[in-house]
Amino acid sequence: MQEFVDFAAHLARASGELIMRYFRSDIAVESKADRSPVTIADRRAEECMRELIMKQYPDHGIIGEEFGAHNAEAEYQWVLDPIDGTKSFISGTFLFGTLIGLLRAGQPLVGAIHHPVTSHLLVGDGAEARLNGELARARDTQELGEAVLCYTDFIDVGKHQNGIAFQQLLGKTRFNRSWGDCHGYFLVATGYADIMVDPIMNLWDIVALVPIIKGAGGAITAWNGGEPLSGGGIIASNGILHDQVLRALNG
Amino acid sequence: MQEFVDFAAHLARASGELIMRYFRSDIAVESKADRSPVTIADRRAEECMRELIMKQYPDHGIIGEEFGAHNAEAEYQWVLDPIDGTKSFISGTFLFGTLIGLLRAGQPLVGAIHHPVTSHLLVGDGAEARLNGELARARDTQELGEAVLCYTDFIDVGKHQNGIAFQQLLGKTRFNRSWGDCHGYFLVATGYADIMVDPIMNLWDIVALVPIIKGAGGAITAWNGGEPLSGGGIIASNGILHDQVLRALNG
Repeated sequence: MQEFVDFAAHLARASGELIMRYFRSDIAVESKADRSPVTIADRRAEECMRELIMKQYPDHGIIGEEFGAHNAEAEYQWVLDPIDGTKSFISGTFLFGTLIGLLRAGQPLVGAIHHPVTSHLLVGDGAEARLNGELARARDTQELGEAVLCYTDFIDVGKHQNGIAFQQLLGKTRFNRSWGDCHGYFLVATGYADIMVDPIMNLWDIVALVPIIKGAGGAITAWNGGEPLSGGGIIASNGILHDQVLRALNG
Repeated sequence: MQEFVDFAAHLARASGELIMRYFRSDIAVESKADRSPVTIADRRAEECMRELIMKQYPDHGIIGEEFGAHNAEAEYQWVLDPIDGTKSFISGTFLFGTLIGLLRAGQPLVGAIHHPVTSHLLVGDGAEARLNGELARARDTQELGEAVLCYTDFIDVGKHQNGIAFQQLLGKTRFNRSWGDCHGYFLVATGYADIMVDPIMNLWDIVALVPIIKGAGGAITAWNGGEPLSGGGIIASNGILHDQVLRALNG
């Protein structure tokens, strides 16, 4: 297991170096079929990680946001989102990150969130989580009124889930911010926020998060409380507040 | 003028070094009379800047968020917010910054926004703005539907201004994020976002922004379109979109 955690960290640092060459530089932004933006930085970073994986683990599979599936029948599958938060990246802000997950027989085993701008590297294996080598833990906020809630896009929540329930929940928390994409999960797992929600998620957005949030002692489920990979969005929390958040968002 | 710009940069770097000693460390968070949080990092950073100013410019005045006024009758007044975005700072995220402004006879002359986590230092003098030495310019987005809009706190907007008009405006933009506090202005002035709004602002939040946004070719007014220091919130934009935003938010 430690071997895979270390390799995920290696992938993060290698791709991060590439990404930073393009950060706040004058690069073209294209629109994908789903109208989400993509740049050469997303593609180069995923290519870099795919090459490293194929060399180190030729019999492993790869599922990447930009280049699809490789060795789809393999027991081990590396799941890559080279730039989670491309809107943040192309807006020159600091909260985007790289997500690297490893599935074994369909179950999340290892995860990494890397913020290339600040060199914060968070890894987890379901039993523990470490930020730049130091143990990371979710914090023990007991009350919704003391909780900090993060999300990615206010308008998107209402498009995919119950937006009225979401707005009511916002009003009950201490404060809320769209410190979104992987950064919200980073904050929950390192004990600096309490709740992070995303109304819709792709496989490559989720796998890395599960071993990190669980390793930090938090909880992570689908929006309806089901298994994280069962679809329909993601809710992560410090664990203590999870049932309250599920009830509030599902009415 | 350049002397004051350089001195503002010096203040930013000196206080930023202090702030980073406390970032993501285990420090106490106190509540001020207005229920906003404050820490030893806010106080030490302001003390550091006050000492440097009193030594360099003993006849200048100082207005600071944490320690009030000094030499209130002086022609030149340094206006300090050591940590703008204390909620971001205590949440271990990267978007807080230090605001340093200089007033001459009540008019904003020089401004600096410093992000200590990433060492981005943006200065302006009303004629130009520079990010780590390179010229910074607002971008030329022409349409609301292509614009990125930033704000600090979704709930706060509705408390102090017309929240319904604000939500309608959000729906007309390309996307919106609470990349708030000084970071939203930083993004507008460096050409990575188009609109930043704050429904309520203190003097120490505003002075630094004016020479930066104007120097970058953008526009900055009160919420109702009046002079920025006239009270009642702030709207900053790339200039092109300013009238549209004012109309949308003021009904």
